[in-house]
This record gives sequence, C-alpha cells and structure tokens, in this order.
Amino acid sequence: MTTTTSVHPHDQLVGQLAAPTEAEVRALDAWWRACNYLTVGQIYLKDNPLLRRSLVPEDIKPRLLGHWGTSPGLSFVYAHVSRLIRHTGQHAIYLAGPGHGGPALVAAGYLEGSYTETYPQVTRDEDGMRRLFRQFSSPGGIPSHVSVTTPGSIHEGGELGYVLVHAFGAVMDNPDLLAVAVVGDGEAETAPLEGSWKGISFLNPARDGAVLPVLHLNGAKIAGPTVLARKDPAEVRSLFAGHGYEVIEVEGADLPGMHLRFAAALAQAWGTIRAIQDSARGGDWDGSRPRWPLIVLRSPKGWTGPDVVDGIQVLGTHRAHQVPLSRVKEGPDHLRLLEQWMRSYRPEELFDADGATALVREANPAGDLRMSATPYANGGRMRPLDLPDHRDFAVDVPAPATVRRESTRQLGELLRETYVRNPHTFRLFSPDETTSNRLGAVLEVSDRAFAERVTEADDHVSVDGRVMEVLSEHNCQGWLEGYTLTGRHGMFATYEAFAMVSASQTIQHAKWLQEADALPWRRRVPSLNILLTSTAWRNDHNGFSHQGPGLIQNVITARGTVGRVYLPPDANCLLSVADHCLRSTSYVNLLVIDKQPQLQYLTAEEADEHCARGAGVWEWAGNDDGTVDPDIVLACAGDVVTMEVVAAAQILRERLPRLRTRVVNVVDLMSLTRHRDHPHGMHETAFKELFTDTVDVVFAFHGYPGAVHHLVHGRPDTDRFHARGFTEQGTTTTPFDMVVRNHVSRYDLVIDAINNARRTPPGASDLKAWCEERLAAHHAYVVEHLEDLPEVREWTLPVRDGAGG
Amino acid sequence: MTTTTSVHPHDQLVGQLAAPTEAEVRALDAWWRACNYLTVGQIYLKDNPLLRRSLVPEDIKPRLLGHWGTSPGLSFVYAHVSRLIRHTGQHAIYLAGPGHGGPALVAAGYLEGSYTETYPQVTRDEDGMRRLFRQFSSPGGIPSHVSVTTPGSIHEGGELGYVLVHAFGAVMDNPDLLAVAVVGDGEAETAPLEGSWKGISFLNPARDGAVLPVLHLNGAKIAGPTVLARKDPAEVRSLFAGHGYEVIEVEGADLPGMHLRFAAALAQAWGTIRAIQDSARGGDWDGSRPRWPLIVLRSPKGWTGPDVVDGIQVLGTHRAHQVPLSRVKEGPDHLRLLEQWMRSYRPEELFDADGATALVREANPAGDLRMSATPYANGGRMRPLDLPDHRDFAVDVPAPATVRRESTRQLGELLRETYVRNPHTFRLFSPDETTSNRLGAVLEVSDRAFAERVTEADDHVSVDGRVMEVLSEHNCQGWLEGYTLTGRHGMFATYEAFAMVSASQTIQHAKWLQEADALPWRRRVPSLNILLTSTAWRNDHNGFSHQGPGLIQNVITARGTVGRVYLPPDANCLLSVADHCLRSTSYVNLLVIDKQPQLQYLTAEEADEHCARGAGVWEWAGNDDGTVDPDIVLACAGDVVTMEVVAAAQILRERLPRLRTRVVNVVDLMSLTRHRDHPHGMHETAFKELFTDTVDVVFAFHGYPGAVHHLVHGRPDTDRFHARGFTEQGTTTTPFDMVVRNHVSRYDLVIDAINNARRTPPGASDLKAWCEERLAAHHAYVVEHLEDLPEVREWTLPVRDGAGG
Repeated sequence: MTTTTSVHPHDQLVGQLAAPTEAEVRALDAWWRACNYLTVGQIYLKDNPLLRRSLVPEDIKPRLLGHWGTSPGLSFVYAHVSRLIRHTGQHAIYLAGPGHGGPALVAAGYLEGSYTETYPQVTRDEDGMRRLFRQFSSPGGIPSHVSVTTPGSIHEGGELGYVLVHAFGAVMDNPDLLAVAVVGDGEAETAPLEGSWKGISFLNPARDGAVLPVLHLNGAKIAGPTVLARKDPAEVRSLFAGHGYEVIEVEGADLPGMHLRFAAALAQAWGTIRAIQDSARGGDWDGSRPRWPLIVLRSPKGWTGPDVVDGIQVLGTHRAHQVPLSRVKEGPDHLRLLEQWMRSYRPEELFDADGATALVREANPAGDLRMSATPYANGGRMRPLDLPDHRDFAVDVPAPATVRRESTRQLGELLRETYVRNPHTFRLFSPDETTSNRLGAVLEVSDRAFAERVTEADDHVSVDGRVMEVLSEHNCQGWLEGYTLTGRHGMFATYEAFAMVSASQTIQHAKWLQEADALPWRRRVPSLNILLTSTAWRNDHNGFSHQGPGLIQNVITARGTVGRVYLPPDANCLLSVADHCLRSTSYVNLLVIDKQPQLQYLTAEEADEHCARGAGVWEWAGNDDGTVDPDIVLACAGDVVTMEVVAAAQILRERLPRLRTRVVNVVDLMSLTRHRDHPHGMHETAFKELFTDTVDVVFAFHGYPGAVHHLVHGRPDTDRFHARGFTEQGTTTTPFDMVVRNHVSRYDLVIDAINNARRTPPGASDLKAWCEERLAAHHAYVVEHLEDLPEVREWTLPVRDGAGG
Repeated sequence: MTTTTSVHPHDQLVGQLAAPTEAEVRALDAWWRACNYLTVGQIYLKDNPLLRRSLVPEDIKPRLLGHWGTSPGLSFVYAHVSRLIRHTGQHAIYLAGPGHGGPALVAAGYLEGSYTETYPQVTRDEDGMRRLFRQFSSPGGIPSHVSVTTPGSIHEGGELGYVLVHAFGAVMDNPDLLAVAVVGDGEAETAPLEGSWKGISFLNPARDGAVLPVLHLNGAKIAGPTVLARKDPAEVRSLFAGHGYEVIEVEGADLPGMHLRFAAALAQAWGTIRAIQDSARGGDWDGSRPRWPLIVLRSPKGWTGPDVVDGIQVLGTHRAHQVPLSRVKEGPDHLRLLEQWMRSYRPEELFDADGATALVREANPAGDLRMSATPYANGGRMRPLDLPDHRDFAVDVPAPATVRRESTRQLGELLRETYVRNPHTFRLFSPDETTSNRLGAVLEVSDRAFAERVTEADDHVSVDGRVMEVLSEHNCQGWLEGYTLTGRHGMFATYEAFAMVSASQTIQHAKWLQEADALPWRRRVPSLNILLTSTAWRNDHNGFSHQGPGLIQNVITARGTVGRVYLPPDANCLLSVADHCLRSTSYVNLLVIDKQPQLQYLTAEEADEHCARGAGVWEWAGNDDGTVDPDIVLACAGDVVTMEVVAAAQILRERLPRLRTRVVNVVDLMSLTRHRDHPHGMHETAFKELFTDTVDVVFAFHGYPGAVHHLVHGRPDTDRFHARGFTEQGTTTTPFDMVVRNHVSRYDLVIDAINNARRTPPGASDLKAWCEERLAAHHAYVVEHLEDLPEVREWTLPVRDGAGG
C-alpha cells in the first residue's frame, strides 16, 4: 500500500488542522504558556504562585529539583495533540519518553482539570496552585518524573528506552487509539529505544491502533551532544525512512511560526494515519506494511527559558537540562531573572484567583478525551480473561513419577483456548521460541504477527497473526507491559537465562506496580506473567551462556505486594499456577519450568491443592509416615531438582529404610518467607508442619542456593537449612552431568541427607560409599568418553518399584 | 571527509583483491568446503571421519547437537578475510555474532593449525579429526558455541546482541586492527545490536582501528522470518546509510559467482577503510565522520546443505537452523542423505590421513596473522597500568567523621593521572555522567570522544577525546568488554539503578571469565571494573526508578574466581579499592559508592589496611573497648548505611554508655562468605574476631537485606544476624527520609540494637522511646510539610562530641 494523498473522508479535517486560525493559535499558545509557567513554578516556588508581588527568597523552595530542559517541548507537543483531539475526537494517550519532564505533564493534567479530579486537595485556584508547586519533588508530595502518580500516564520515563515499546503495546488490539510517543534525543541513544522503531513491522493497521513517534531533538543530554542531533538531517531522514517511516520535520524556535508548522506537521501525520487505517479497514489494502508517519521536532533545549546566565549561554545547551537558575535563593540577580522568566509567560492573562482563565481552558479537550483523563491509561476497560477450566488440559497421572510429558505443551493448549475465547484481549510474546518452548498449540488458532513480506515457506506467519515473536526480549517484554497497562492480558515466554536481558524492565515494571498499589485511584491491571523455560538445567545442549537462573534473584527483592515466583514441578502444577497468574492483577509473576519431557507427579486435583498451599509434604515420595520429627527433610523447588530429590528419597527408602525421610516440594517460592515479609509467606505453624523446628533440611533449589538462605531468614534455626542449587557450573553436556557438576544430583543429595540426618541408621556409610561410587563412575565416564563414546547416559529416574540408580 | 576514490597507495592491492585468480578461487573454495565438511562432521560423526567407508549408524553420535544454518556463511566470510590477510598483511580478528555457529569457527582454527597448537591432542590427522568431531558438544569436550575454548575468539555469541559493541571496543586504540563482525539477521533484531551501529560516531580513524560489519541476512531465525531479511533492500540500504555506512551488497548462492562478488565487495570495503585511515593519519582530514563500509551478505540459510528433506524444503528456510537431518541414526534414508551431503564437499580432495591437503592449507595466513591465532584475541599485548600512588589523592582526615567530601571526586583525580600515564591503554566509559558523577577531572586531560559534528557550546567534546560517553549502558559496557578482552584497561561508571540495564552483559562477561580461568592457554585480561554511583540512597532527587541496588544480587552469585563486590565507605577506601581493582585481572569488580558529599572516616593508611582486610572493627566508633564479647555488634557495608551506623553508635555511646557496642565495617562484601565458598571469604577465626560466635549483629546493608543472609550462611548461628537495607521504599524525597522509609536510620538502628542486645542496661527503654519520638517527629514533618514547608531537614551526622540527633 502506498499512502494515498487523494480525497478521503478526513481530507477536510486535515485541512482545518493544518491551518489553525489566529484565535486557535492564541489559545494554543496561552495553554502552552500556562503549562510552562506551572512547570517553572513547580521547580522553584513554595509560595506566591500567581506572582502577586515580587519574588522574595522566602518564596523559593529550600531544594531546587526538576528537569526544565525537556519540559517546554513536552508541553508544546501536548498542546497540539489536544487541539487535534478537539477537532477530531481522536482517542489518544501521551507517553513522555523524557519522563524527567514530569512537571510539564503534571501541569497539563492540572490545566485539564483531571489533576484536581484525582487529587481534590490540589484545587483549581490559587491555593491549589500553591499546593501543586509545593508538592512537587517534596517529601510527602509527588516524585519528579512522569510517575504513577501522574494521571494519564502509563510510562515513567525514568529509566530511558521504553517509550516506544510501551506505545506499541498500548495500541495493539486498540484500533481506536493513537499513542503519541515523545522520544528524547538522549533516550534515542539507548539500545532498547533503537531496538523499538521496528514496532511497525508487527502492527496491523486494521486491527491495531497507531503510534505517532515524535523524535524531539533538542541537541543535548545531561552534559554532551547526542548522535541524532548532530548528524546531518539527511542521514536522520534516511535512517527513519529505512525503518519504514514517513519523516516529517519541524524545526525552530520562532513563534507563532512553530505553532503553525507543527500544526501542519501533525495534521499531515494524522491524515496519513487515518488514510492508512481507512484503507486497511475498508478492505482496500494489499497487506503490505504501511509507511507510518514520524515527526522530527528540533527545538532548543530549555525553550522559552533563560537565554544567557552569568554571561554563559544556557538556552539551547546542555546547561538548560535541569535547573537553569540555581542560585535564586542565594542572590538577588538569579531571583530577578527567575521573576522575569516567569512573567514572560504573562501569567496575568493565564491565571486568576480561580485558576486558569477561560482563554487557557478552552484549549482543553472534553471529558475522557483529555489525555490526562483517558481510561486507556488507567487499566483501560479491563475485564477478566474468559479462561477455560485448566484441568481440561491436565495430564493423566495414574501414579506419581510414572509418566513423562513436556509440561509446557499442556500450557500451550491452555493458551490456545485462551486465544480462542479472548480474541482481542490476550497475546503471547516470545523471542522466536513459541514452538521451541512447546507452546506451538497457539499457532493452531493464530499466526505469528508480521507486517513485512511473508513467503510461502513461512510457517504460521501473517499480518493478521497475534502471536508476537521478535528476537528481542526488550520488545517482547515492553510490548506486554504496554498491553497490560492498558488493561489487556498476556504472557512473555522466554529462555530463562535471557530473561536477564530485560531484567531491568521487569524491575522497573515492578516498581510501577508497587507505587500504583498505594494509589486508590489507580485501577489494578493484568499481571506481568513471565514464563521462564528452556532453563539452566536443560540447556545442556546450548551451554553455559544459556544457563543462568538470575532473574529469580531480582524478583525475590520486589515488595510483597507485587513479586511472585512459582516453580511448578510438573504439568498439572504448571496449569494450576498459570490459571492463577492469568486471573491475577498487578503482580509480576515469574513461572519457571523446563520444556523437555519430564516426570509427572500430581493429578489435576492434587496439583490444585498443592499449588494453593504453595508447598507441601509429598508423603508418597518419603518414608517418614507422617511422623512429627523425621530424621531429615529433603526439600525441593523447581522441576529438575524435584526429580533429583524424588530419586534420592527413593534410594533412601529402598536402601536405608530406617532413615525417616520427609520430602517437601515448594511451588510458591515466596511461601518460604515469613508472613510479615510477604503475604504468601507461610504462617509459623504451617512452616513448622513442613520443615519442623529442628530437623535439618537439605534443600535442592532450581536457582542459586543463596536465595534459599535469603528467603528462610527469620524461620526457626535457619542454620539447619543446607541449600543446593545452580552454582555456575555449566557447559554443553548431558542433563545428568549438569546436576552432578552442581552437586545437586540424587547421589549428592543422598550423601547430604545422611551427613545431616539426626540419626544415622546402620548401612548409612555403605550407602554413602555406593553413592560416591556412582559419582566416581560418572566422572570417569565423562573423562573417558572421548576415547570410547558410549550412548549418552539416559537421564532416568528409577521407577518407584525398581532398583535405584 | 568524503571517501576518496582517487589514486591512493592501496589501489593496486585493492585491484588484486577484487579480482581473484582462478587458482585463488579454487583454494578459497577448497578451504571453505573443508570447513563445511568439518562442521558437518562435528555435528554428526563420532567415527569414520574421512568417510573411508559408507556411513553406518554406529558412526553417528548418540545425540545430535549444533547449529548448521549459519555455519557455512560464517566460514565463507572467514575464508575471504583470510585471503585479504594473505594479500595485505592486515591484522584482523573475527567476531561471530551468530556464535552458535561454533563448529564453523572450530573448524577454521583446526584448518589453520592453531587448534592443534592450543590442544595438541587434537592432531592434524585422521585421529585428530575423529577427536575433533567427538569432542564437539560432548561431555568433557567443548561447548557448541564460539566459546572461550575457541582459539581466536573474544565473543561467544550465545546471548545475542553484543557482537558490534565488542568489535568497537576491540579496535579502540588499536589502530592496526580490523575487526570483522558478522551480524546474523536474528541478532540484528535485538535491542543491544540495533543500539550499537552508532559505534562509528565515536571512532577516530587516526587513532582507532576499523570495524567491518558483515550483516548476514539468511532470512530466518529459529522459527520465523526476520525484519531486515524481509524489508525491501532499498529500505535496508537507507537504514544503514542513515547510520552513516557505505552499504555494499552481495547476494546469491551461485558458485564461483559468490566468491567473485564477495571478493570484490571485501576489496571495496578494505580499500575504503584504508583510504579513510590513510587520509586521517596523513593529516588530510577535516575531522568529519567518515562513511565506513558495511557489507550486506544475502545467502541461503544452510547454504550447501540438504535442499529438500522428506519432501519439505529445508535449504534457505528456518528448518536449516539446527540439525537439518535429524533421523540419521534411526533410518537409512537420512543416513544416506548425510553421506551424500558430506561427499558433496569432495573430502578426498581436502583431507588425507595427514589431515588437510596442501590445496586447503595454502589458503591459510601465516603465524599470528591467522585469525584463530591472533594475539589480539588472547589478552592482546596486555601490560599492567602505570598507576600513580593512589594515596596522592587521599583526603586529609584529621579525625573520623569530621570532614565531608565527594568521594568520587578523589577517584576522578586518580583516573585523570591514569589517563595521563597510559595514553593508549585506559579509558573511562559512562552514559553521559562523567561530570555528574564527579569524575570530571579526567576531562582536564581528555575530551569526550565524539565523531559527529561538534559545536562551540560543547564542553570538552572532540573526535580526539578518549572519555567515552554515550547514553547507552549497553554500549558503555560492551565497549569496555571488547577493550579489556583485547588487553586494555578501563572502568564503566554508571548510576547504580541503571547498571541493571546491562546486567545481562555483566553476567555473560563473568561467565566468559569463569570459563577462561579454567583454560591454561587463555591469558588473564584486565578486570571489568563497574563503578556504581548515584546510588539508591542518594537518588532522593530522581525518585524510585533511580533507586535500585539490584546488580549486587547478580554479582554475588558469580563464581568466587571472578565476582567481587566492594562497598568503600569513604574516599580513601574508594581510592584503595580502585587501585586494587585497576591492578587486578580477570575479575568482575563492582565498586559501590555515592557521589554526594559524605563523611570521611579513615586516613589513607588506615583505609589501605582496612581494605586489605576487607572488614574490620572501628573501635573509635563503638564502645566495646576491645572486649571479646560486646553486647551488640552494629555492622555496616555501604557509605550511607555506614553513616547511619556510626551515628547510631554515637547515640548509644552517649546515651547508653553501659551497652558495649561494637562497630564493624565491611568493605569487601564477599569477605562475609565462608572461605571455601569464595577466596575472599574470611577464615573462621577472623570472622569470629569481628562478629563473635554468639552476639547478635544488626547489619545495615547498602543493598537488599536478604543478600546478607545469603552471604553469611554457614557462619556460626546466623539467626543472630538482623539485616537492614533497601526494601524498595523510595520516591523523590529528602536523603534522611530515604533511610527512615527503609528502616535503616540511626534511630531504627538504635532500637534494633537495644532489642537484640544481650543485656539491656538501665535507660534502654528511655532511649528507645526517645528514638521513636524522633521517628514520629520525622513522619509528622513529612505529613505536614506541605502546609508549613520548613527548610529541608539537613542530613547531619551528630559530630563526635556534640549532642545526638
């Protein structure tokens, strides 16, 4: 499809938009000046908000915080998008990549009235303005960034790089939505941002909304120039044309010229977007990827702020980045400059004792169309998923540890049905691994989404697909974040080790949810569900770089209101946990399970009960026969180590039956913590029922063993916990060699159990010797195999009634 | 500078290169066929390496692992670069972005003879070939990726995205080096890779070497198409022209056509590079950014491999990604196809019982010029840094806790002198924060590097600069990795929270160093030094997104051979630790300290002794007077929490003098672990001297408190450790409010100390009440401040002789 410039239904509207009347420009400019005035006020003033008298040092805040440089550009774009909304009724959300320009967005919400609707104490009058100013970046007030407290925001913009992925995620399956995403030229240097322009290669103009990126080049970041600002503009055009965009450029600082030129640019962009959408939705589309518009806005850093200070150029340089006048409290010169600066906005035209004047207010869109009040940015119109009964996909388990299945395949079936029942509100995101991770059932009901050229050899790939595959964890996770923050549901499935690639996003999203939890007006949103599969233990074929359970380390430190880590040992537990996670809201749920064939332990009913408890004794695996005080507890969390524990317990049961061994499996990792530290933490009595107060616990953990000590702190006598787990011993090898290398094999566990048991029944030392022999035989096998390569040792679990080993 | 195409000294050479003779093509092709043959052999065979007889199932490995799809492309490029080297004497290293094509690079090293030089048991004959095949992806053998075990590699290519940042880091200050970096089209979708094309905007053609990216588009990743492979080639050209490259395209599968066209392309690229360098080095350069060449190679996935298998197209599709024939052991049809495939390389021309024939060997460059033998890829020509005496930059500390200084400013001076003394072997990397982080002294002796347009308003920015600032943690860290792996030294300084952005790189680099440590032939390389500053506790102005000490969680899980975490409490300790880290090799050193003015405790001599021990009692701070068993131990690790502990101890000393309080400061975090778990772990007696066996320890930690429990596991009676630290309570607020919110303020610590002390002397409950009052007053202040905004409470430490609070 080429973008049509012939007559289409929006031509007249585009014409109006492109040529604002003088009155419109006056209103636009007044609104923008008001926004800038409020921005400066938030940074500097604690009193005298209307400048009813000359500023005195006592009007100035004790600590000057905030970022001025980017703010006027943010509000300039905002003002123009508001005008677009007034003319067209377009639903829009606004994402400020340079989120440190927080005061500009707070000011916008205040001018639109939604700030007062959200925070009634910040009234739309002089008192309210004073409060607005005081609360900014003050203890007990609001943070300095476009944070969770900012109405209309789904994006903080603190850690840079994610504005476009959030925008693309927000518009997926939201055909009526326009996401305006401002990209600062500092942010434009980050890898995640550079990796996100290609969002249009996965967008469907018929079914999805549109993203309008505004690349705001003001030339500098904190202290230095930026690459895109200093490139030849022809190179910049070439770059974005290469990404597939129609580049529209606006440059300058002249007024009202900039208003006129930006209005024309925005009109062109919107006209192009609507033409693309009309064409796609009207059936007049050949399926090729449209050339979506992108605006490059070049305006000076700190636009409308102080030009030269103490003889040094500030406007347009990196010196305008934060607080351009820093000594306002200390000396009269800067104080006078501040007052001149604020009065340059002619506040008397903009505000009176009742707040913003009609001149300013008339620039606001109405009701929900105000970007600071859009429901899209507050959980959207979230409805719970229509989920099938997860037990419909259960594995039949006639007896524990007798059948092997690829557990994630069962999850794939659950997700397939979830796609069918929720055709517009659920998506799976994955870096090219849906099939590899055994979730391919979803492809029976949806293709992979791809808006570039598709060939015949492609397998389930089309522009109508809704399974999101892109070889970028940053894109997968960021899209899902944008998708859930606007009220839709999803899951990100990835190789465990490479979940670390986007760990920083996971952490930042958790912070967002943690803050949101404390705000009554923020609606809960679907949880961020991250499935870690192809795990450390079973990347025996890919080797050490693919073996890393690090993300668990970063999720167990989240607040209890948000962080959840599940390690289902088998398919039915996975289904139960997944069902819970897909129904949950505002959590970060980590689900960890491998994709390879693995033993199955629990029936669907047992799994539901086990997962609801979070942890439990597996009586069939141990032989303590319900005694209060076994000789040893063998605990496990994670599929592979659970198999080793079950195998170790079987060896003990058969070869050392007088040792009373209890087996405990933990699904919900946070259940190990004290209840006061995490809501999932087991109460003391429950903990004691599993782990006793005094008996030693050999704990085989999927991740780094130190995490167990981290989690059980505060429980009775934690010195008795002996954690085993992944200790960074990996390579391309056999599955069994992986557990041996990390000293968590069944033989290691038997030895550990004997060494730490309260009693050592007769035969214990013989059994230890036997285990040591098995390990020695394994090592010999590894050393010798190159000379006499046998069949690779199968990774078998002794069947329940058979011989050990 | 525009790239000159007029006569220059290399024109004749370029002409020769561009038009290989028939004999050259024959040799090239033979070498490539040999490489492909050895690649297939590694994936499939355990015997019959020369195909002396027909294949039988017993010749086939029990488990088929490896990635065929990308391998022939990797060896094709390698063969042509080798020819370039033979003609020109160019020093080159080869970085395989698709590192899963490991067998191709192993084969190349084997053909070049360096593999046998490195691993003498893998001889250059039939026996050696058998061993070569057997060891691949086998237990006790070698991993499947281009890993640490692969001679000539500095890049595993397991976690995708870093090939270009490593290449750019490698050529910085290596003017004679050409880094050929193959970018797979899967990798090209990752954010880190997309963010790394701009390396040329920071390269100096006079002083640095060159990177030649080869974008290898074979159309598919694991299961789906890729964006760049499916875009209109005109868009691809536009994209890379926009990044600043001269795009050279080669496409096809025809032979010898592809050899001829690729030879011409490589000749053009090399000619352009040398013209750029000659011009810049000859003084004929206006300083503008050159247009560096980039080759786009389009060849089928699995090139030369099976075309159609079981009626399904494999060649050129995602199905060629891993093992294109998977049932070779199970049935005769695939076994026959495998034999046909291998014989298609005409092994009888390539190998005899003595290994590769002369036809093949003549394509190898000589000696160190062989890419598999280049010293650049094995620690370069590393020499220790010439470091000044770090005590020259020490802060004068007349008495502990009496002066305040910005500690990182002192480090900046040390780094300035390091730049002066090591003009070609040391660089500082930072995301635009050198000055912000108080390291600006380096700018006195070097500008910021920037190859795009520089303006008059820029501050210390030039193409001759060697301070590396780019707003991308991925670039900073990746460049430093490439720089150190080729034997040069550096430091990456970043905001603590945003070190998580590149955490995955930190983890992968640690894995590389861990593996290298086990290989005697791998030379040690300079450590990866990461300075975390602008820490969680003092991002009170930026807010919650900037408050995250997460990276510590990921470094404490590294093997003891590699991971190091230092938390110097003041400037003199920072200098001592930095000196140690800059002298160290093959570690990942995390240094954590804030940049704001902070109290100074130790003299230079005291700091050196304290840091050498790793932890110690601060007798001046406590009042246990050297008793063996104090009533309570107040421990701390981290600058801000150390101040709170010192203040708490002072309150206790003054107001509860009969409570014997010991203060322990920990600089080297890993000293807390058992010696058997980490070489820095204190021996039992040393641990006991600090922490006793039985006395309770209130431990104020910079990071997440659970890490303390993680680390002290195995020490006597760990239940007595009560860790406090960052508990995800943050926002934009005052510094003092930060420690109160996280319950690690001096008042919280005094209460903790009293609650956990062995004895509670008279007056203890009064003091607790007094502390609770102070906390209540603080909370009241926060709640009320918006009504009556006082000066922000200064974050003071009671002076030693003054009143508490």
